[in-house]
Amino acid sequence: MTAERTCPAPEALGPTITIGEILVEIMAAVPGDGFLEPLTLVGPYPSGAPAIFIDQVAKMGGGAGIIASVGRDDFGEVNIRRLARDGVDTSAISRSDHLPTGTAFVRYRPDGGRDFVFNIAHSAAGDLAMTDAVRRLIERAGHLHVMGTALSIPRAWPILTAALDTVKRRGGSVSFDPNLRKELMAPEVEQRFETVLAATDLFLPSEEEIFLAGEASDVDAAAAALLARGVREVVVKRGARGATRYSADGTLDRPAFAVAEIDPTGAGDCFGAGYVTARRLGHGPEAALRFAAAAGARNVTLRGPMEGTSTLAELDALMASQRTI
Amino acid sequence: MTAERTCPAPEALGPTITIGEILVEIMAAVPGDGFLEPLTLVGPYPSGAPAIFIDQVAKMGGGAGIIASVGRDDFGEVNIRRLARDGVDTSAISRSDHLPTGTAFVRYRPDGGRDFVFNIAHSAAGDLAMTDAVRRLIERAGHLHVMGTALSIPRAWPILTAALDTVKRRGGSVSFDPNLRKELMAPEVEQRFETVLAATDLFLPSEEEIFLAGEASDVDAAAAALLARGVREVVVKRGARGATRYSADGTLDRPAFAVAEIDPTGAGDCFGAGYVTARRLGHGPEAALRFAAAAGARNVTLRGPMEGTSTLAELDALMASQRTI
Repeated sequence: MTAERTCPAPEALGPTITIGEILVEIMAAVPGDGFLEPLTLVGPYPSGAPAIFIDQVAKMGGGAGIIASVGRDDFGEVNIRRLARDGVDTSAISRSDHLPTGTAFVRYRPDGGRDFVFNIAHSAAGDLAMTDAVRRLIERAGHLHVMGTALSIPRAWPILTAALDTVKRRGGSVSFDPNLRKELMAPEVEQRFETVLAATDLFLPSEEEIFLAGEASDVDAAAAALLARGVREVVVKRGARGATRYSADGTLDRPAFAVAEIDPTGAGDCFGAGYVTARRLGHGPEAALRFAAAAGARNVTLRGPMEGTSTLAELDALMASQRTI
Repeated sequence: MTAERTCPAPEALGPTITIGEILVEIMAAVPGDGFLEPLTLVGPYPSGAPAIFIDQVAKMGGGAGIIASVGRDDFGEVNIRRLARDGVDTSAISRSDHLPTGTAFVRYRPDGGRDFVFNIAHSAAGDLAMTDAVRRLIERAGHLHVMGTALSIPRAWPILTAALDTVKRRGGSVSFDPNLRKELMAPEVEQRFETVLAATDLFLPSEEEIFLAGEASDVDAAAAALLARGVREVVVKRGARGATRYSADGTLDRPAFAVAEIDPTGAGDCFGAGYVTARRLGHGPEAALRFAAAAGARNVTLRGPMEGTSTLAELDALMASQRTI
C-alpha cells in the first residue's frame, strides 16, 4: 500500500551521488600494536567512506552513483564489482593508468584504538578529473552527499563545486558528513568546509565534529546555530549512544539498536546513507532515524567496512528483532 | 684454523653494497586467482630483491649495506629492523616524508604461476637521493652488487653509476643479477644494462636472462661471449636444476640441494648472495657454488621472501644433511 502523495518523493529528481576515495582495507586478524611483524590479515575488503556510503544507498534501493578513481589492478576491480553488483552507477569511476588503488591496513589495538598504514594520498584515489562520464552523472543527480574526506583531495574540489552548483540549480539537495578532524584541517580545507556547509540541507556530524561549524557552549547550541544559518536538518551521530535530529520542528532523540560489535568501521557512513536514503524515498524524520540506526547497527556486526551494508529487507529484519526499542 | 694467505680476502676492502627497492610482501594464504574477494593473507614480510640479497650477505657474516628508501610507516620499520638485526648497515636507508613503503601482494595460482598487486613505482622505493650517508657508504664499499630491478628506478641510476665508479676506482668488484625481462626493458634501461655489464666481474643470470647480454646459439656460447667481453665469472642459475659457473678456468656444474619447496620467492637473490659472499670471504668457486646452492635451497623451505635467509651455521647444517650431493 502506498500513501497518496501530493508531490513525488525527492528520489524522483535523480540519484544520490558522492565523490571521493575508494580503497581496499586489509585487516589484522588479531588485535595488537601496528604491523611490525608478519601477521594473519584478511582482505582486500572494498572500502573508502564515500564508497561505503553509496553502497548502502544503493542496497536500500535508492538511485546511487559515485565519482572516484581506482587503479588498473585487482583492488580497483574488487571495488567496482562490489558497487556495481549492489546497484551503484559506476560509470564515473575512472581507472588510473599509473597509480595503484588506495590501501588502508588497519589493526585494532587491545585498548580499542586503531593503528593504520595508509596509501591514499599517492594512490589512484586522488587522480580525479572532470570527464564526460562525471559530467553526465552530475547532470542527472538529485542529491549530493559530501564526505569530508574528499575535501582533502585537491582534484576532487573543482568537481565537488560543479556538483554542488548543478544539484542546487536542479532543485536537488545536499548532505554533508564532515568526517574530519580539526587538527588535520589545512587552511584550504577549512575554506572548502565553509563553502559546503553554506550549501548544506542536512548536516551529519558526530558530537565532536559539530563544533567544526563554529564554537558553541554545547551540542544543542551548536545545532541551533546551524539551523539559524539555513541548514534544514542536523543529525548528530553518537554511535552506540544513539542519535539526535534537530530541525525547525524540534528535536528527536533515537537510541541505537543493541548489537554485538565485530567491526565498527563504516558504521557512521551507513547511518548517514540510511538517513539520507529513507528521507529521499519519502520517509519522515522518525522513520529515517530508525532506518539509519538499523543500517549503522547492522554494519558493525560484520567484519569488513562494506560487508555490513544492508538491503531494506535486512534492515526490516533487524528492526523487527528489536521491536521494543 | 686459518689457512695462510698471501693477500687479504676481498672482504677486507669494505662491505658489499647494493641499491634498490625495499618492500613488504603480503601473501595470500590459499592459492587461487588474484585478489578479487577478501582472503586470508599473511604479512607484512620484509622484501625487495636487493633487500633479500643484502640480508643474506649479512647473515653469512659478510659486511653489508644497502642504499634504499622506505616510508615513515610500520612497513618501513619492519624492514629496517630486520636488516639491522641481521647485521646490514642501514645508515643509507632514507625515510620518505610523503611516500609510503612499497608493497607487493602475491598469490600463487594453482598452476604454480603468481598474481601480483604492486605499489612500487609510486612508493618510497623510488624516492632515492645522494645523501651524505649514501656517499659515505659508497666510499667505503668493497663490492657493488647491482640488482637489475634498480635499473628501472630513475633516481637510482646516478647513485648506481657513482657507486660503480667509486668501487672500481678503489679496486673493488661488481656483480650483476639482471633480474629483468626483455619485454619490460625500456630503451634507457637497455642502455643502463650495457653500462653495468661493461663493469661487471661476476654475472648471475638465469638461463633466459643470459641472452639479454646478446644473441647466442645456446647458454654455453652466451657465457663464452661474456667471458670474451671481460666478465670474469658467469654463474647461470637454474633453480632446482642447479647452476653452472663459467670462467677462463673452465666450467663447473653444481646440482641443487633437494628440499621441500614452500615459497620460491627470494631463492635467486639468496643464491647470488651466497656465491658473492663466499667468494669475498675467500672461498674458491666450487665451495662458493655449494654455499650458494644451500642458501637458495634453504630460502624456499620457509614462507616469506626474507624469512629463509641463512647464517653460515644454518648453511653448514643443510649441507651436512645432504652430504652425498
